Amino acid sequence: MGWGDLGAFGEPSKETPNLDQMAAEGMLFLDFYTANPLCSPSRAALLTGRLPVRNGFYTTNAHARNAYTPQDIVGGIQDSELLLPELLKKAGYINKIIGKWHLGHRPQFHPLKHGFDEWFGSPNCHFGPYDNRELPNIPVYRDWEMIGRYYDDFKIDLKTGEANLTQLYLQEALDFISKQQASQQPFFLYWAIDATHAPVYASKQFLGTSQRGLYGDAVREIDDSIGKILRHLQQLGISENTFVFFTSDNGAALISAPKQGGSNGPFLCGKQTTFEGGMREPAIAWWPGHVPAGGVSHQLGNVMDLFTTSLSLAGLQPPCDRQIDGIDLLPVILQGKLIDRPIFYYRGNEMMAVRAGLYKAHYWTWSNSWEEYGKGTDFCPGQNVSGVTTHTQEEHTHLPLLFHLGRDPGEKFPLSFASEEYQRAMERLSGIVQQHRDTLVPGEPQLNVCDKAVMNWSPPGCEKLGKCLKVPESDPKKCSWPH
Amino acid sequence: MGWGDLGAFGEPSKETPNLDQMAAEGMLFLDFYTANPLCSPSRAALLTGRLPVRNGFYTTNAHARNAYTPQDIVGGIQDSELLLPELLKKAGYINKIIGKWHLGHRPQFHPLKHGFDEWFGSPNCHFGPYDNRELPNIPVYRDWEMIGRYYDDFKIDLKTGEANLTQLYLQEALDFISKQQASQQPFFLYWAIDATHAPVYASKQFLGTSQRGLYGDAVREIDDSIGKILRHLQQLGISENTFVFFTSDNGAALISAPKQGGSNGPFLCGKQTTFEGGMREPAIAWWPGHVPAGGVSHQLGNVMDLFTTSLSLAGLQPPCDRQIDGIDLLPVILQGKLIDRPIFYYRGNEMMAVRAGLYKAHYWTWSNSWEEYGKGTDFCPGQNVSGVTTHTQEEHTHLPLLFHLGRDPGEKFPLSFASEEYQRAMERLSGIVQQHRDTLVPGEPQLNVCDKAVMNWSPPGCEKLGKCLKVPESDPKKCSWPH
Repeated sequence: MGWGDLGAFGEPSKETPNLDQMAAEGMLFLDFYTANPLCSPSRAALLTGRLPVRNGFYTTNAHARNAYTPQDIVGGIQDSELLLPELLKKAGYINKIIGKWHLGHRPQFHPLKHGFDEWFGSPNCHFGPYDNRELPNIPVYRDWEMIGRYYDDFKIDLKTGEANLTQLYLQEALDFISKQQASQQPFFLYWAIDATHAPVYASKQFLGTSQRGLYGDAVREIDDSIGKILRHLQQLGISENTFVFFTSDNGAALISAPKQGGSNGPFLCGKQTTFEGGMREPAIAWWPGHVPAGGVSHQLGNVMDLFTTSLSLAGLQPPCDRQIDGIDLLPVILQGKLIDRPIFYYRGNEMMAVRAGLYKAHYWTWSNSWEEYGKGTDFCPGQNVSGVTTHTQEEHTHLPLLFHLGRDPGEKFPLSFASEEYQRAMERLSGIVQQHRDTLVPGEPQLNVCDKAVMNWSPPGCEKLGKCLKVPESDPKKCSWPH
Repeated sequence: MGWGDLGAFGEPSKETPNLDQMAAEGMLFLDFYTANPLCSPSRAALLTGRLPVRNGFYTTNAHARNAYTPQDIVGGIQDSELLLPELLKKAGYINKIIGKWHLGHRPQFHPLKHGFDEWFGSPNCHFGPYDNRELPNIPVYRDWEMIGRYYDDFKIDLKTGEANLTQLYLQEALDFISKQQASQQPFFLYWAIDATHAPVYASKQFLGTSQRGLYGDAVREIDDSIGKILRHLQQLGISENTFVFFTSDNGAALISAPKQGGSNGPFLCGKQTTFEGGMREPAIAWWPGHVPAGGVSHQLGNVMDLFTTSLSLAGLQPPCDRQIDGIDLLPVILQGKLIDRPIFYYRGNEMMAVRAGLYKAHYWTWSNSWEEYGKGTDFCPGQNVSGVTTHTQEEHTHLPLLFHLGRDPGEKFPLSFASEEYQRAMERLSGIVQQHRDTLVPGEPQLNVCDKAVMNWSPPGCEKLGKCLKVPESDPKKCSWPH
């Protein structure tokens, strides 16, 4: 989902009354970021509070490449990483993930081995349908075992765009919340639904209801679901002690536009890029009676902050034996403070850009290769800015491309290298980058090796269902990451 | 000002609390248009309720050129046109214009000859400073006579961006409203301030207060002023019988970006173009106790509707001896109705595009000439879409370029000519265009002739001030309209 996909963020169809209401009752974050321009690394960062380059969710197979966890990925979240639910357990929390895990699908990476108590959802993206011979369809798990597969048992009709999945995930959330309220146990619910990811789908009742086509239908269904979750919390009388945060793991994928693309509002490019459209996200904090209604914050925030902030809410300290990149946002949310902190924009193993205050400096620019672009893969359709959205990896480390995101949120007008403003801003940014680089200890990269044998052929539980597939011979290879 | 310049429309700096509040208390129009992608024709259309091609505010000097009323224009608003204030007089209204008139500056075009009772402001844009020898500075009038000139008597400091003009225009508005309330006379106030037009300025108290630079400072000052006007109406107890509408006369001029440019949000290009960024405008209706608070309308609206709607509010009928393009929006505003009507996008004498529902068909495309573009004039910076923002005038009358503005508000993905959707949508649009063309009687073009002798050398009142300048010999020529 992109920054510009909600009415509250200026989407012209204005079809998200529930999220807009959530913003009106809570706090809107206008400068909130993911940790990476795509899914797996962002989700790993959210749950560990650490940049992907630290927690291992990146590749060194090639320079500055986006990597994630497709079916044939060998790696995943390492045992040495401490995840938010593992820590929350110490404070008596019951933790549930509903939806996409995306932190590795081999047995050792299972979410219930990393702090979650319950799981309903899938380990990978809902790509498909596959033939279950060359490629298996993605399994859907309940807790330890699979209970079916996408397309086989959990239908997604690519022709009509119909799928009931968001409704299943919604009901699961409502049930979990009811159960926790009844048992009076504190809970952490990570509602990590698949929508609006391509292939985009919505339930029958939402199909055709948007001015924006199928993508808009999916947004409307999410909006409706979140409204139902918030109302459920209120009806159970626990909204005043439940902190809710809404955000997304990367910008809208403009490569899928206009039919399945979404909107990054006035920002440049989309998913896969380190321009604002790739990493700036809609974000809303909601906690009636605590978060001031109608608040608007310009705090530079990051999904990693949700790790630290959640620990803080539970009265816990973040681990002190490792570098944590997330900050505690409670002073921002509860007292309206502004904390001076930078945002780092990584693509794989490379820090592409950094933001502090309103200035953003690009040390490297790249949208994608000429080869990929020539094949029709365009992450910046209709927005290719000469010298900015480059199709070769351009190094600017000696003279970074600098933008003022207040005057120029769309990153279209680099500041003159000769200007005083450039000198002044770069002095500050250079210091921040220097310090970051000097102290950075990259983690072991986990997204380098792929192997057809590790795919979801025979997930636990497949025997009971008679749905085990034949595992091919192991043939580990370097994964190919074209972007 | 552009669609994306207000917080309520998604501007990332969120610096318009008063306008956002106005929207929260009133109705937000998301699909509201000007009648033309630049100033004079849009303002003439607003006041006459008629397309510029009907009221004469266009040129035939060349095909599809934008024309306005610079200092050397010979033409202006014709006596045969009926302006909103002329008609409102019949219902006892006192009419005042504060700010830029822009409908011609020769004596016969004076606003007090066209229905206004009072005027404080200038006839042309605040360009300058001029030397008062080759070119006179633009006069500022109070009613019939000039009381000084921009830069000479009404300071605009181009270096610091400081000018007190919006404050003067605000005070004038507050005073007029007080006076009318005291005398119990109904009034029409056309608050047509110069800001945010380039050269952009703001008062000292607003300079440097925006995240967006000087342009943002100007927006903040407008926002603050409108807040003061609305509060003034409330304090005088007349808000419940005063209808207020906020909009702009063209999209943000991206040619002046990023320092003086503004934002058109997710839309394509800016002022001077018939893409959405050139003509789609922020628009808010406010009338406490009548307009439902927090309303959002997808009605296709146009500044020309303000003519018809205002007449309706005053209990008057629009003239029936001429074609009126504006519709009465009261059923939309008061009862939430949606009226099916098209939007025509003109550039000079050519209908470039038409919108009905969510479909927009371009019959001609042009951003500007290669020659102008080569000189650095770019109306679509960082948004040049191949085959769409063309630098030659491209005719598509036989196979229009079609966009679905719901899925693709940025006009980046033309629909396939071969698709059923294209056929279906074009069938409807073709009928609309055919009917429009069949019944169109263009007015006599008023913006063809320019003459240095008609400039503001010796406006009425200059004698008293000792500010009359020598009028050069008349030398009428065809005006040159490069865009």
